[in-house]
Amino acid sequence: MSRNVLLLPGDGIGPEIVAEAEKILHAINEKFDLKLTFDTGLVGGAALDEADNPLPDDTLDMARKADAILLGAVGGPKWDALPMAKRPEKGLLGLRSNLELFANLRPAILYPQLASASSLKPEVVSGLDIMIVRELTGGIYFGQPRGVRQLESGERQGYNTYAYTESEIRRIGRVAFEAAQQRGKKLCSVDKANVLEVTVLWREIMNELKSEYPDVELSHMYVDNAAMQLVRAPKQFDVIVTGNMFGDILSDEAAMLTGSIGMLPSASLNSEKQGMYEPCHGSAPDIAGKGIANPLATIISAAMMLRYSLDEEKAAAAIEAAVNKVLDQGLRTADIMSEGGTRVSTREMGDAVLAAL
Amino acid sequence: MSRNVLLLPGDGIGPEIVAEAEKILHAINEKFDLKLTFDTGLVGGAALDEADNPLPDDTLDMARKADAILLGAVGGPKWDALPMAKRPEKGLLGLRSNLELFANLRPAILYPQLASASSLKPEVVSGLDIMIVRELTGGIYFGQPRGVRQLESGERQGYNTYAYTESEIRRIGRVAFEAAQQRGKKLCSVDKANVLEVTVLWREIMNELKSEYPDVELSHMYVDNAAMQLVRAPKQFDVIVTGNMFGDILSDEAAMLTGSIGMLPSASLNSEKQGMYEPCHGSAPDIAGKGIANPLATIISAAMMLRYSLDEEKAAAAIEAAVNKVLDQGLRTADIMSEGGTRVSTREMGDAVLAAL
Ligand SMILES: CC(C)[C@H](C(=O)O)[C@@H](O)C(=O)O
Ligand SMILES: CC(C)[C@H](C(=O)O)[C@@H](O)C(=O)O
Repeated sequence: MSRNVLLLPGDGIGPEIVAEAEKILHAINEKFDLKLTFDTGLVGGAALDEADNPLPDDTLDMARKADAILLGAVGGPKWDALPMAKRPEKGLLGLRSNLELFANLRPAILYPQLASASSLKPEVVSGLDIMIVRELTGGIYFGQPRGVRQLESGERQGYNTYAYTESEIRRIGRVAFEAAQQRGKKLCSVDKANVLEVTVLWREIMNELKSEYPDVELSHMYVDNAAMQLVRAPKQFDVIVTGNMFGDILSDEAAMLTGSIGMLPSASLNSEKQGMYEPCHGSAPDIAGKGIANPLATIISAAMMLRYSLDEEKAAAAIEAAVNKVLDQGLRTADIMSEGGTRVSTREMGDAVLAAL
Repeated sequence: MSRNVLLLPGDGIGPEIVAEAEKILHAINEKFDLKLTFDTGLVGGAALDEADNPLPDDTLDMARKADAILLGAVGGPKWDALPMAKRPEKGLLGLRSNLELFANLRPAILYPQLASASSLKPEVVSGLDIMIVRELTGGIYFGQPRGVRQLESGERQGYNTYAYTESEIRRIGRVAFEAAQQRGKKLCSVDKANVLEVTVLWREIMNELKSEYPDVELSHMYVDNAAMQLVRAPKQFDVIVTGNMFGDILSDEAAMLTGSIGMLPSASLNSEKQGMYEPCHGSAPDIAGKGIANPLATIISAAMMLRYSLDEEKAAAAIEAAVNKVLDQGLRTADIMSEGGTRVSTREMGDAVLAAL
C-alpha cells in the first residue's frame, strides 16, 4: 500500500524549510519502509506568479488525491496590493475549504531546551503544553454575505458575516473533546456569548456535547478573558476549542508564549483524517532566501503528519527524537539562538536532524 | 458653571470600588473648587434586579444630561442564563451606543512600583506605555442582521455581522492619529485585511487619513500577528487603533502584560468629549463584597475623567500623584500584593489615596 504526500513549498521561506523536511521524509521513508510517494505543487504567491491563480486546478487535484499535504507558508508584500480573490492567502483558504479541513490542531509547547527564548518568566511557562483546536472552514472566514457596498448615503460600507451551524460546531466540538480525553481531560471553550448570538449557539452545543464525554471537564471563557489568561497563567489550560477568527488570534498568542514559534507545527484535518500540515509561523519574507530560517517547525509538522494522517507513530517519534537530540546538542538557528548555543543555517539544521535519525 | 457627574456602580465589586472613587472625587471637588454635582444610577444586573431592564430610562436620561459618567463594572453569573436582551452587558452596550461613545481609550501602562507583578520578564515590559484606541459603537458588536435562525435543513445557525462604514472608520482613525501626535507619533492599525473585506476598507481609510498627519508614522498589522507581537515585544507599540472586537481582545491582552489590570483605567468618548470612564477589569463576582478589590483603576479612571471630559488637568494630576504616593508607600491590595508590601483593603486603599491628596 503506497501513500502519497503532496509538498507545497509556497512563498517566502517556504521553499527553504520544506526542502529540509523533504530530506528528512525521504530518509524516514527508507528507514521505516513507509512506501511514501511524493509530489510537489504550487500554491499562494508562487502559483500566482506562475499560473495567475493562488490555487491552480492541478494543485487542488493533487491535494484531493494525496493522503497528506505538507505546506510551507504563503503570502508576502509582493502580492499585498492584489484584490482579495487574487491573494496568496486564497490558496491556503481554498485548500482548507475544498478539502473540508475543519479541525486545526495547534499545540503550544515549550521545549525545555529553549525555555529562555520566552518573553515570559520561566515559572509562568515552564512545562507549558496547550492544544488549541480551531475551527477552520467556517465562521467569519467563509461567511456570506461579504464585501464592500455603496450605501444610499453615498459612502461605502465593508461587511462580513460570522456564522456557524449546529453541525459545524458539533463536529469541531467532538474533535476537541476527544483531544482532551487523550490529554489532561480539561476543555475550555472560548466564545463571546455575552455579545455575539453566533457564540451563544456555540456555547449551547458545547454544553450539549459534554454529556457524551463525562470524563472531560468543560469550562467556558470569553475571548477577551482568554487573551488575558494566556498571558497571566497559561498553564491553567489543557485543550482550548474556539472558532476560526478567535482561534487565529489565540493560537498565535499562545504560540508566542513559548518564544520559539519557529518550533511549532500545526495540523488541519478533515473527517477522514486526511490532513494538511504546516508550521505555525508565516512566510517571513524579510529573511527569505538567506538560508537562516528555522526548518524545525516544518520538520515537526512532518512528524505530526506521519502520526495523524499516515498512522506511522514510530516514524513520527523517530523524527521528534532526532529534533530533541539536535536541540540537546545546542544547535540553534538565528530565531532560537541564545548564549552557549551553536548557530547553524537552515540547511545545517536539516542535516543535523538527518544525522540524528 | 456647575458640571454633573453620573456614578454607575453596577455589579460585583462595582459598588465597592466606585464608593472609594466617589470619596476622592468629593475631596478633589472641594479642594479645587470644581463645582461638580453627583448623581447615582442603576445599570447592568443591579438595574435588572430593580427594574427588569439593564438600562432603565431614568439612567439613560441622567447619562445624557451628565458631563461625564464613572462606571464600576457590570455582569455576573447570576444573570448569565438570561436571554441576550436581558443581560447586564446590554446596559453597558446601550450606554455606549446611545451616547455614541465611539472612541475607547485603553492605556496599558506598567507602574514601576508594580513591575514584579507582570508575568513577563522585566526587560520586556519595563517602561511599557501603550495606548489602545478601540472603536466602540460599531463593528460586530452592533452589526445587523444578527441572531439564531432555523435553516431549511432543520438545523439552527447563529450569525452576526461585522460592518464598518467609511465615516465610522474615519472618526476613530482621527482620534487615534491625534493621540499618536500627542505621544510617540507612531500609530499601528490592526486589521485582518488578508481575509476580511470590512478590514480592507478599514486599511484603505487609515492610509487615506495618513496624509492629514504627516508627522505620524502609520503601520498596519494583522490581528494574529499583533496578538503575538504584544507578547514578544510590546514596547514596539505607541498607539494601536482597531475595531470593536479586535480591540476588546487586544486591549485586555495588553492590559494583562502589566500584571496589574487592577490599576488600568479606560475612557469612552463621543465627539463632544462627553465620556464614560471605567476600570479595565470586570465585575469580579468571586471577590465581590469581601472588601478586597483594588479601587485604584476606578480612582485613576476618575482622574482620566477630570482630564478628558471636565478639562481639569490639575485635579487629575493631583489624583494621579496621590496614587503614586500610596504605591511608593508600599500599600497593596491583594491583586498587586508582593513581598515587602503592606496589604490593605479596598477602603484602606481609598483612605490612603484621600490622605495623600
Ligand atoms: C495566512 C492567513 C490567511 C492564515 C489565517 O488567518 O488563517 C494564517 O494566519 C493562519 O493562521 O494559518
Ligand atoms: C462586558 C463586555 C460587553 C465588554 C465588551 O466586550 O466590550 C467588556 O469586555 C469590555 O471590554 O468593556
